[in-house]
This record gives sequence, structure tokens and C-alpha cells, in this order.
Amino acid sequence: MKLMPLMEKLLPICRSITGDGLKKSLGILSEGTGLKTIEYPSGQECFEWTVPEEWNIRDAYIIDSRGNKIVDFQKCGLHVVNYSMPFKGKLSFQELKPHLYSLPEKPNAIPYRTSYYNRVWGFCISHEQYLKMEENPAEKYDVCIDSDIKNGAMPIAEWLIPGETDQEILLSTNVCHPCMANDNLSNAVVATAVAKEIAKWPKRKYSYRLLVLPATVGCIAYIHNNPGWVEKIYGGYVLSCLGDPGNFTYKKTYQGNHEIDKVMLSALKTGDAGYEIREFSPIGGDESQYNSPGFRLPIGSLMRTPFMEYPEYHTSLDNLDLVTEEALQGSVKTYLRAIRNLELNATYKVTFKGDPKLNKYNLYVGPHEDYNRFVGTNYFFSMSDGQNSLLDISEKCNVDIEILNDLAEKALQNGMVTRT
Amino acid sequence: MKLMPLMEKLLPICRSITGDGLKKSLGILSEGTGLKTIEYPSGQECFEWTVPEEWNIRDAYIIDSRGNKIVDFQKCGLHVVNYSMPFKGKLSFQELKPHLYSLPEKPNAIPYRTSYYNRVWGFCISHEQYLKMEENPAEKYDVCIDSDIKNGAMPIAEWLIPGETDQEILLSTNVCHPCMANDNLSNAVVATAVAKEIAKWPKRKYSYRLLVLPATVGCIAYIHNNPGWVEKIYGGYVLSCLGDPGNFTYKKTYQGNHEIDKVMLSALKTGDAGYEIREFSPIGGDESQYNSPGFRLPIGSLMRTPFMEYPEYHTSLDNLDLVTEEALQGSVKTYLRAIRNLELNATYKVTFKGDPKLNKYNLYVGPHEDYNRFVGTNYFFSMSDGQNSLLDISEKCNVDIEILNDLAEKALQNGMVTRT
Amino acid sequence: MKLMPLMEKLLPICRSITGDGLKKSLGILSEGTGLKTIEYPSGQECFEWTVPEEWNIRDAYIIDSRGNKIVDFQKCGLHVVNYSMPFKGKLSFQELKPHLYSLPEKPNAIPYRTSYYNRVWGFCISHEQYLKMEENPAEKYDVCIDSDIKNGAMPIAEWLIPGETDQEILLSTNVCHPCMANDNLSNAVVATAVAKEIAKWPKRKYSYRLLVLPATVGCIAYIHNNPGWVEKIYGGYVLSCLGDPGNFTYKKTYQGNHEIDKVMLSALKTGDAGYEIREFSPIGGDESQYNSPGFRLPIGSLMRTPFMEYPEYHTSLDNLDLVTEEALQGSVKTYLRAIRNLELNATYKVTFKGDPKLNKYNLYVGPHEDYNRFVGTNYFFSMSDGQNSLLDISEKCNVDIEILNDLAEKALQNGMVTRT
Repeated sequence: MKLMPLMEKLLPICRSITGDGLKKSLGILSEGTGLKTIEYPSGQECFEWTVPEEWNIRDAYIIDSRGNKIVDFQKCGLHVVNYSMPFKGKLSFQELKPHLYSLPEKPNAIPYRTSYYNRVWGFCISHEQYLKMEENPAEKYDVCIDSDIKNGAMPIAEWLIPGETDQEILLSTNVCHPCMANDNLSNAVVATAVAKEIAKWPKRKYSYRLLVLPATVGCIAYIHNNPGWVEKIYGGYVLSCLGDPGNFTYKKTYQGNHEIDKVMLSALKTGDAGYEIREFSPIGGDESQYNSPGFRLPIGSLMRTPFMEYPEYHTSLDNLDLVTEEALQGSVKTYLRAIRNLELNATYKVTFKGDPKLNKYNLYVGPHEDYNRFVGTNYFFSMSDGQNSLLDISEKCNVDIEILNDLAEKALQNGMVTRT
Repeated sequence: MKLMPLMEKLLPICRSITGDGLKKSLGILSEGTGLKTIEYPSGQECFEWTVPEEWNIRDAYIIDSRGNKIVDFQKCGLHVVNYSMPFKGKLSFQELKPHLYSLPEKPNAIPYRTSYYNRVWGFCISHEQYLKMEENPAEKYDVCIDSDIKNGAMPIAEWLIPGETDQEILLSTNVCHPCMANDNLSNAVVATAVAKEIAKWPKRKYSYRLLVLPATVGCIAYIHNNPGWVEKIYGGYVLSCLGDPGNFTYKKTYQGNHEIDKVMLSALKTGDAGYEIREFSPIGGDESQYNSPGFRLPIGSLMRTPFMEYPEYHTSLDNLDLVTEEALQGSVKTYLRAIRNLELNATYKVTFKGDPKLNKYNLYVGPHEDYNRFVGTNYFFSMSDGQNSLLDISEKCNVDIEILNDLAEKALQNGMVTRT
Repeated sequence: MKLMPLMEKLLPICRSITGDGLKKSLGILSEGTGLKTIEYPSGQECFEWTVPEEWNIRDAYIIDSRGNKIVDFQKCGLHVVNYSMPFKGKLSFQELKPHLYSLPEKPNAIPYRTSYYNRVWGFCISHEQYLKMEENPAEKYDVCIDSDIKNGAMPIAEWLIPGETDQEILLSTNVCHPCMANDNLSNAVVATAVAKEIAKWPKRKYSYRLLVLPATVGCIAYIHNNPGWVEKIYGGYVLSCLGDPGNFTYKKTYQGNHEIDKVMLSALKTGDAGYEIREFSPIGGDESQYNSPGFRLPIGSLMRTPFMEYPEYHTSLDNLDLVTEEALQGSVKTYLRAIRNLELNATYKVTFKGDPKLNKYNLYVGPHEDYNRFVGTNYFFSMSDGQNSLLDISEKCNVDIEILNDLAEKALQNGMVTRT
């Protein structure tokens, strides 16, 4: 299924960590999935954090003295500082200036700016536009922000796909940024696509939980409202920036050598895309929360170009031109391969001594016939002593775990191995 | 003792995993050693494997219509597919063609080909010869393979050189390839030379067992016919491809950090030849059997250019031109140095506090006098705390264990250290 | 405080491992410090070593037949082989020649030469001078060495700066080389400067002991004369060659991963000077004694260009031109930073779950405000789980432990963490 149409549909919506734009987005993402939206009331104390008041915005503009609407929220949701207080008035350029934000180093980009906790109002504009306004210091402007901030609720969406055990694999993603494509629409779109594929599998060893959350406070509120839940989590991933065609970057869990890390490394190693591996760092998204000392959940994060490391980041230039269908699909595929590794991983033990006589079992494959299977066969029977999992074997010989699993199942049927 | 004469004597014999050629070769290798040949009957079940029927060949040829013997087994034993069934007949080129094997990419080489378990017959010829035959598609040939495959026995040769304990160091090698020099005559010749040197030593801490075996099934049959033997093995080496003048390659045991590995690494590190170290891999020779999960014997393998990695491999070009006396002797020397390291390795503990006053014991050596002994002396007294063996010390300071052992013996006499 | 004036004052004194020059030097170093000189009697047996007889020298010269004093001990103390026996006589060049030492490869340098244990006499001269003497083989010389070697004592100086516990950090250095600047005046001058700073601190977790010793036998005599002392040592450093402007070299303790190593690595990593890290080696100074199997004290050594590795080493060219005030001060600073790391190092545990809401505690710092503090804050709260010390955190995030400690103290006041 193509993912770009969903990106196109979601892009123009002005989202925030609360409000109608976010609710509408969660609704669209839920179509064709089992995602359900839940709301947490403003003011609820969640560990160190408080669920914020709800922000809604209907319109915002700046009109010059000749009646031209030079800034129009309807054209781009980034034009207003996220969580701006309402404002209406006629202001000189000098009065308006402290409320204008632009990026001199990226003159054609509208910056993305938020002020969740300090009550301010402001407009984000391209620096080109700012320079034009600066030319007429005597100009007067009609300024309007038609917003409100009041008690309400913060929505999150969740989908539990049950498996053979209650142990959960978490797929967590954000969708609170307005009108930008790679950060963080692409990850929400990829996350739902991954979950939809997993839901189709005839059986699952683990249960899978997809969470689509506003950043930071969404994650912490979810944990707070689901006491006992974190104990069920085996591990998982935070999905972030997955739509650009850059190489993958995998940021490890705090533990750094958890099965969650190993299955992803294996997926990357036996995959066809370039990648980079990084140690865990608390500077990032919700993986910081999940891995924090109070929870220490093994949650890694596969990204493409990481947030902050591409020049369009947090501006109107992070648009659909930056994102390709192929990159989105490649991201889905890589997550699914890692998760498939997790599902297939098991440990076997040979029942015979010495090297097996493979042709007796119809398992002989020559190196020129299928090199990967040849190598995998040799390593599988050499390492399957009850101590090494398929993942360990894959790591040693660089053969995809799917090939090793196929071999293991045949060997199991032949009585050549037992599962431990 | 020169080794090339033995190589020259053994080269022309057409060996296989059974048969008279193999028996004759084992007999020649046994001269001047304690090697004894033992036979296992065809059909004996040995773990996953079965001792094969015995193959013998007396003659084979292809004669063209003008009476020219264009392929003659008497000239090169590689001309016949090893384990070819007997055949006699007059065949057109088209009929003969499916029984001809050549290497288009190495046109002057006769390939080495076996068919131990599928009953076929065939000839291996140079591609140059094949192309000449192809020019006369209408030609008829007298074809003869005077061989038989029947119940018999598989011979192996063994030599136990006793030491102070029953714990055994295994030296295992193959000699089943016909008419090729580096793979695997060189290793059999080096192995017997190593064993002969060890047998001359006035005393040995370990017992040493030399096995000269047909590949794979020979090794597994030996283990099967000697129940309880594997428990006595401390470790050892598979000798393979040791005659070419290439750098050494050491393939580690499955454990990867066994004393068997360390003594070889130390021999290589303090030696004068180039070398490369590789992790254990189950793709190889009998080391795969010994290290397999059912046995997990710590058996490493020192080679020169590894099998499959030199262009002459498994062709008539793997001849005496590829092998040098110097390379053979260097291989013997390196194995002996590793084994000597094993014999000398021990752990000592100083009996005094602080740095020793070396000139009191006549042990002072200045750096300009003998740098290696100067360094070795400092490290020996600094590390000998009952925890570090001479091998550990050698590894740290790159000084040959023989120098450290000499020092240790003097220090022992002086009462400066005890042996732990 | 400037250190070069002290260097200048000490340089001309002819020191040895005993004698008036050494005593005078210890006296000068003691000014403004708590250093006290202690003497051990000649002939005292200390483990493997014996306190040597005392050597004193008043004058030495070579006068040619025209009355020219061509070698004059008063001009440079290096002119006499250290521990030369007294001598007086008229000698031909041929008779004098075996008593002359020069360095053909460094023709303008007077070498430094000792003969502590073999009773000889000799002169060290530049090779230029030697060549001039060689031109007149018939010349006769008045030769005088006015020295004596007799029963006496060996002085050492020590200063104990008490802390909250009896556990001691050792700062050990030598000052027995005559008339050379970098080796080993610079280290004695840096060591006293470091100790003077530590003594000024209002409180110290550890006690600190500064030892200024003649090399090898001084260190071993001190340990011998202070039974039970080594048990009180937590760790420490041997200070050596700290005056040249070269990069730092840190030689680790035998253990290699002791807190003593970690605090120094952290000081170097977060400092602004280039550095190199080396494994422990028993070839060196008194760190060899302290780390020897009988004591195994974790004593590292921070140097600048290590002894033997600069061309002026052990010659008259190791003079004040080689040493800079800036290098001396940088050495003092780096030692103090390592020791401060040791004092500040502690382990904390967060009292809350999830990420902290930093602005509630006035601890929020943005990345553009103060990047190091931003990073340090994130890592401190992510890693403080009771398992990771400030040092571990500093190692992970490369932020100076002083920043982390400041944060830890604020977090402790806020109740966000407990100290474990």
C-alpha cells in the first residue's frame, strides 16, 4: 500500500500536543487500523509532568495598511507560534517586531516554534518576508490570532495487537508537529503501516502495542495512566524521522546489547541499505523517557537522518519534497525485518555428534548453488549447542535469520536438533 | 632433514579416501616414525557417517581413432574422477562429452574432481585438450577406466608419543588428495616432521598423537572407534596447506581464547613470518568435526595460504613448483615453537617485595646489551604474582617465552620465585 | 605562583641519591610547604636493596699543561660521573682517556652518567671537547676529583596533608638528578606546587602524602621504614618529566582501570591539551616499585614527553630552555583536575520516574545557552540510577565532572536525587 497519499492528507493540518488538529490527525491515522483515541484531562499530574491545557486555533493573520494579508495561517499552520495566546490589535512594525520569528540563515523557510509553558503570542515568517516588512518601519498592521487555551484534554491513540503471550513489544511514535513531513508525520505513517502488517500475521509470539502520542508529556501520561503496564514490556522502538531517503541510523537502548538491539542490527546487517549505529543518548525523543532510570525499558530507535541533522529540520522546508515513497516503504520493511527476527529467534541443540551427513536429510547445498544457505547451514550445525540463538548465529555468519529459521525447522522435523 | 624428497616421492601416487594409493602413501610417511596403519571396514556406521567401499584403480585412458592415447591416467592421477566406476567402450565425442571435466578459466590445468557417494565415471582434462577434441565432433574414442569399488577397508595412520601425563595434544592431518603438492601432501609431510622432532625431546609434559587421515569420514571413524578418547584431548591442531611460501593464517579454535590459540599466537607474534589470525569457522577441514557441538575439542589450524584461496587449488597446477623447502621448514618450526610454548608455559610468584636487585643474582641485563632480555626481565618480575603465566607475560611484552622460561628457571634456582 | 624561579634556583645544584646537594635541594623545595626531611642510615637493608653510602663532592677539574682548567665541576655538576671516587694525579691523555665519557652523536652535550654501585671515577665532557683533547695525544693533565664516599645517610622528604579519612593518595617524585631541568627537577617543582594547592582546600575526602625521594632505593627504603603504610594507600601518581611543552602521556596503573586511572583520563579528556594513554609497563621510575607484585599499589604516572623520548634526555641540554612556565603550570593544573575528580566522584540515584521537568527546579538549560551543561544535565538524570558515578557519566558524555557535581549538588538540595 502506498503511504504518500496518507502523508499528503495529514500534512496541512495544524497539530500540537493537544487540540482539534491532533484529534483529527489521530482519526485519520486510525482508519483501517485498530487504533483507538483516549483522552487525559488537562491538569492531571503524571510523575514530574502535568497534562497541559488544550490549545485550539481557528485563524491568524497579519494585514498591512493596503489590506494585503501578508501572513495567513490558513496557508501554513507554522505561521503561528504553537500554543500562542489569542491576540487582536493594530500594531506598528516596532510593536509587532518582538512577536516575529524568522531564520536569517534560511531566508525562505518559515521556522517552527512552540511555547507550551510560557504564555506568549507570535508569528513565524520567512526571513525574506521579514526583510520586506523591515523596509517600511512606519507601516501599521492589523494583527489577529484567533486561538484559545483552556481546560480540556490531551488525546493519545493506542492499538494492542495480541500475541501468544502478554509480553509486549512497543512501537511508540509522535504526531504533534504541525505541517511538517519528515518530522514527525513520516514516523506516524510508518508506525501504523508496520502495525497493520503485524496484525495480518497468522500468529505472533509477542503482543504488540502501537502508541501515537504527543511528545514527552503524552508518553509520560500514558505510563502514569496504565499502572503495571511497563512490567509487561519486553522492549520496543521509538519511530522517528523515517521518510527521507538518507541512510538509517539506529540508536541503541540504554542496555546497548539487548535482544531489541540485536534483532535490529541483524536486520540492518543483512539488509541492503546503508546504516550507522549509535550508543544510547538521553538527548532525543520519548526513548529518553522509556529508558530513564525509573523505567529502564529497552527501547531503541531506528531513524533515517536523525532529527536536528538535516537542514530542513523544524522549518516549512521539511515538506513532502523531502520524503519519498521508497524511503517510507524501506523504513517499514526494516522495522518488519527486525520484528520478524525477534519472532523467529530461538535456540537449538544438535542431537548427533560430529558433522552431519547433510545429503541423508536432503539438506546439502553447495557453495556455488546458494552461498548464503551453504554458509548458514555450516554455522547452524556448528553453533547450535543450546547456547547460541539463531540471532547469535546470524551475527557470526551474516546470514539472514529467515534462512537459518527455515533450516532450523527442517532440522527439527528431521530430529537433527531440539529446541531449547 | 630435507622434506622435498619426501614430497617428490609421494606426489605421483593416486590417492583417495580408501585404496592402495592411500595405503602406499601412509606406508611411505611412516618410514622413520612410529606411525602405524589401522583399517576400518567398509560399511561401519560412525555417528552420521558410514565407512565407504574401497576404490582401486589400475589404469584409465582415452585413445583416439588414430591410436593416440590422448588422456593417460599413468601420466597424472587427476585425469580420472576420484571414485569413478569402471568403464570400457567405444564412444563418439557426443557420448563422451558429459563425462569430461575441464576449467575454461584455467585452460592448462587438469581439475581435481571426486564423486565419493554418487556412482559415476569421468575424466578430468585441461580445457586446451577439451577444445582440441571439440574441433572433431565426429571423432570416436576408445575409453577405459580399469577401477573397482567394493567392500574393503579405510586405512588411517596414528602415532602416540607418550608424555608425563595422559593428556593429549592432537596433530591431525589429511593425505587423501591425489597428485597435488600443497593440498594435501605438504601438511602430511610437515605433520610427520613435527611429530618426529617432538619424539626426540627428552621429556614432554603432554602426550602427542599424530593422526594421518582421509578427510571427514576418517576423522569421524577414528573418534567412533576410540570411545573415551576425546576426553583425553587437551587440544591440538589440524595441519593444512603448509608448503607454499605465503604468509601464515591461523584459524582459531571455536573457544577462540584457549591456551592452544594463545601459544600459537605467541609463536607467530615473536616469529619472523607474516601472519593473519581468523576466527573459527565451520567451513574448512577436520577442525570442523573436532570443534563440532558434540565434541567441542579446542583444535586450531595453522595454514599458509588457506585452501581455496590460491589459484592453483584443486588442479594439477598445485604441484611441486608451488612448494618450497623453506616454506615447509618454516611451517615445521612454527608448529614446534607453538608446542614448545605449550610445554614451557607455567606460572610463577615472586618471593620478595619491590623491584629485585638484579645484579645480586647476576640477572642484570642492560637495554643496550640485549633488549629482549631486558624487557623480559622487567615484565617477568613485575607480572609474576601467581596470576600470570609466562604466556600472558609474553603476550604483554612480546618477548619469546623461551627467554622468559630461561629467566624463570634461573629465578627459581635463586629462590626469587616459586612455581604455582 | 611562578615556578620557573624555583627551577632556576635548584638547577645548578649537583644532586645525587645521597649527599649535601640532595639535602640542600630538599630544603629549598620544603620552603613554604609542610615537607620534612628524614634520613635513613647507610647500610640499612630494605627488602632487596641496601641504603648506599653517602657521596659528597666539593670540586673536580682537569687542567692542561698550560694551566687552563679545561673541565670544571664548578661550572657544571654533570662533569663528574655521579658517585665518582676521589682521585688526584697527573695523567697522560692515554691514561685519562678510559675515564672520559662523551656522546659522539650529540657533540655539544655533556652526558649524565652514574656509577652508584661500582667504584670508579670519571669525567663527562662534550664530544667537541673530547676531540680537541684527542688532537694532542701527548698532553699531560692535572686531574682532581675531591669527593668522598662513606657511611652516612640517605635523605627523603615527606608531607602528609590530612583529610577526612586516613586513606591516602600518594604523590611521589624524584629529585636526585644533578643540574638537569626537565628530568627530574620539573616534576619535583610541580609536585610541591600541587601539594601546596591541595593543602589550601577547606576539606579533603582523602589524605595526601607527598614524597620527594632519591630514585628506586629512596622509594623502597621509605616503604620499608613505614610498615603498614602501604595498606592505607588508595592510589596515587608518580610525577615525572613535567616541564617541557610536549603533549601529556599518561601511563596507567598495573590494574589499568582503577579510579586513579579514570579520574586522570577524565581530566585529560575534558582538558585542552593533547595526550596519549599507555598501558602500565615496569620499565620506568618508582611506579615500577609501587605496582610490583609485593605491593600492587595503583600508582599511575602523568608525564609530558616521557623520559628517554626527548633528545636532550640525560645530558646538559636538558636545561631551562627545555622547560616553560606554561608547561609547568599546565602540569600542575592537570594533576589538580584529576585529584579534584577523585574528590568529587560520587554516585547518585534519581527519586522520580521518567524525565524530570527541569524548569520546575530552575535547572533547565537550552543547548544554545550552555551546550556542556545541557548535555551534562541530560546524562546526569539519565544515568544516575545508583550504578553510575559522576566519573562514569563524565566518561560517557565528555562533560567535566565539575559541571556534573554542581548539578548533583543542586539536585540533591531539590530532593531529585539521593547520594548512594
